[in-house]
Amino acid sequence: MPPGSDRFPDGPSGPFAARTERMAVSDVRALFAAARRPDVISLAGGMPFVQALPEADVLDVARAVITERAHLALQYGGGVGLEELREQLVGLMAREGVQSDADRVLVTGGGQQALDIVGKVFIDPGDRIVVEAPSYVGALSAFSVYEPRFETIPLDDDGMVVEALEARFAEGLRPKFVYTVPTFTNPAGVTMSLERRHRLVALCRDAGVPIVEDNPYGMLRFEGDPLPCLHTLDPEGVVYLGTLSKVFAPGMRIGFITAPAAPLERMISTKEGSDLCTSSFAQLMAAAYLSGPRFEPNLLALVDVYRERRDAMLAALERFMPKGTTWTRPNGGFYVWVSLPPELDARSLLPTAFGRGVAYVAGTGFYPDGRGSDRIRLAFSYPTPEEIGEGVRRLGAVLSEALTLARGEAAGAPDPAPSHRGAGHDAGVGHGAAAEAAAAMRLLR
Amino acid sequence: MPPGSDRFPDGPSGPFAARTERMAVSDVRALFAAARRPDVISLAGGMPFVQALPEADVLDVARAVITERAHLALQYGGGVGLEELREQLVGLMAREGVQSDADRVLVTGGGQQALDIVGKVFIDPGDRIVVEAPSYVGALSAFSVYEPRFETIPLDDDGMVVEALEARFAEGLRPKFVYTVPTFTNPAGVTMSLERRHRLVALCRDAGVPIVEDNPYGMLRFEGDPLPCLHTLDPEGVVYLGTLSKVFAPGMRIGFITAPAAPLERMISTKEGSDLCTSSFAQLMAAAYLSGPRFEPNLLALVDVYRERRDAMLAALERFMPKGTTWTRPNGGFYVWVSLPPELDARSLLPTAFGRGVAYVAGTGFYPDGRGSDRIRLAFSYPTPEEIGEGVRRLGAVLSEALTLARGEAAGAPDPAPSHRGAGHDAGVGHGAAAEAAAAMRLLR
Repeated sequence: MPPGSDRFPDGPSGPFAARTERMAVSDVRALFAAARRPDVISLAGGMPFVQALPEADVLDVARAVITERAHLALQYGGGVGLEELREQLVGLMAREGVQSDADRVLVTGGGQQALDIVGKVFIDPGDRIVVEAPSYVGALSAFSVYEPRFETIPLDDDGMVVEALEARFAEGLRPKFVYTVPTFTNPAGVTMSLERRHRLVALCRDAGVPIVEDNPYGMLRFEGDPLPCLHTLDPEGVVYLGTLSKVFAPGMRIGFITAPAAPLERMISTKEGSDLCTSSFAQLMAAAYLSGPRFEPNLLALVDVYRERRDAMLAALERFMPKGTTWTRPNGGFYVWVSLPPELDARSLLPTAFGRGVAYVAGTGFYPDGRGSDRIRLAFSYPTPEEIGEGVRRLGAVLSEALTLARGEAAGAPDPAPSHRGAGHDAGVGHGAAAEAAAAMRLLR
Repeated sequence: MPPGSDRFPDGPSGPFAARTERMAVSDVRALFAAARRPDVISLAGGMPFVQALPEADVLDVARAVITERAHLALQYGGGVGLEELREQLVGLMAREGVQSDADRVLVTGGGQQALDIVGKVFIDPGDRIVVEAPSYVGALSAFSVYEPRFETIPLDDDGMVVEALEARFAEGLRPKFVYTVPTFTNPAGVTMSLERRHRLVALCRDAGVPIVEDNPYGMLRFEGDPLPCLHTLDPEGVVYLGTLSKVFAPGMRIGFITAPAAPLERMISTKEGSDLCTSSFAQLMAAAYLSGPRFEPNLLALVDVYRERRDAMLAALERFMPKGTTWTRPNGGFYVWVSLPPELDARSLLPTAFGRGVAYVAGTGFYPDGRGSDRIRLAFSYPTPEEIGEGVRRLGAVLSEALTLARGEAAGAPDPAPSHRGAGHDAGVGHGAAAEAAAAMRLLR
């Protein structure tokens, strides 16, 4: 290499690890930047509605931490997390029937770091892991770095089709783990049935395969009775991930893991290598908030807020979606998953939708294999019910017009639907599922 | 595997990634727990003296963030970090002559996450990387996960022996990067000379090899004129890492990276996959503190505190160390690096030292290859000058007695020094450098 030349070229002559090839920059990012324009109603990002958390409550907590625990709050903590927060997290998990104790809890930098730690601890390049299709884009992104082979199992209205997994196991599949969001999944908004929960746990126990259960939304239930967590059904076979991002504030970056001793020990070491420890200040704020008098009423108020928004979205979808469109009806969480008529391509319609003042996430980011172009994720967590109604109205207009156009083209051409679909992909912004996932990550805030 | 059996066995039949074999649990941890007893003076952990930061200053900052920016503070931020913090970090770097701009800065979860990101972005298994010997244990730990081959270059009182690196390059070595802490290094407390800085930068430029410059301690200079950062000498060839842990508070977990566009882009994507973003609350606290009136006077006060403690440690070493012991004389930072007489083994003496009420870190954790058993790292950042004096006195007594014993044994036995040394290693707590490093990590708080 000549003196003074670029030290950071792409490709095999450059210094970058192979795993970074999956992180190539994409113009999807520029496209999504448009979604932040004030005239665009974003149904894309799954941001919690933090405005529902009174400032006075946050200030009370911060003041208590600083006046009573300043030295601890400002100092390094142990990699496993501060004991007073771990004790609170044990109580929080117990509300959902997850039994743990403070010695079995690891505090992480949000749920996303928990996913990264899972990937780091379990995945060697080429290992098979099972994910749902569709699956949380942040999990696909976190795991991808460790270069697994993704095995996908479909979802239906009762969650992961465990029967399909059973068939794969019968064929000999033995993945490093099965990753699932059983309750109010992101993006599909569906929940695994009780029967399937039992069946999944028994299947994985018999096969000797660990389950990674990710439960960010379980406490945001709008109606119906809670179902037992997978961890509750089989504590020794399940690595359980949680987060305070949806019940307190994502700006704190507090997630957590409880797991059997052997994986937990490795996860603690991994956490230490990754960032030494999570912010002591944020941990103490979280512990004070969870143990204080405002957590309970604020959580109830939040659930009411999200229920109203879910209702607004379902009503608007009923009213404005063109015929042939279907969607899920979540009992909790943040998301509705929309299936488009086969003539439409969610990605190629994004620029039009932005131009018409509405943003969504195309389904392709939620599959590791490029599927999902006929799916759309809509988040109802952040916009007001009025904004949701107007956003869905705009989306309905975009889809209806595109459908009319596609069907008109179809009527005037010999073999139109497939070619239109192909053109949609060509004209789109796709650079593969990983780039799409990376870009979609930016929308998850 | 039989039904209901352990889902998490060690070894090739288990689910863990190969990289976790380097994280094996070690009884070093139990040993170090002893160092937390109140009767033990710890010269081990490099904890900043956060008590020097007035609580009122922290409360002012928290109150301003919550009353003026609550919604931003509680929400997800972009992976790259909040702009108002990135702008402050540009100003902070400029104080040390590092030119950047807000679009070229990535906020990380402390300096440790910056190291993890460097490893993730650059290292494929088997890649060669250059580190100093000794080197920061947290960097060795972060990089190890990505399974590089470490190439070590010795340090002397003028920092990395660049001449030795030059010889290795002449033999054909082309590492993925050269990692260095040029100023007040951890653990050795030494600083790379100006001549060597120029020589290192020119060497790497000619060879097309990136430099990763880690500068946690640069602003904690007790005397003498600052030297230019490597990034200042070659902005296009250097990835520069910084942290607020030493100039504000480690409990905030704020580090940062500035780098040329190509690596920075990959680092941003990597950061997003690792934990989406750093705590918005902590970022806004940091931005408010850096831009407020208390940063400057508090920093000056901190430097005075650490200078006094360095002086106390050097005076006590002069007074209490046995003959044949030597040590470095840092002009800044947190650490003194002690070389023991050849009869002594730092690791096997640890239990005795704890029993006598003093803790230190044995040198082996700071080398990737098991060297360093005759070295000790002493941190003067956290204990008071009086505690430092007493701790060094206790350490001197332990070393002197061990030396007398070793020399007595040597006088009465035919080939004693090697066998004693070997016994020391056998009776010690060693499970290899990586376990040692992991355990030592727990002392870095």
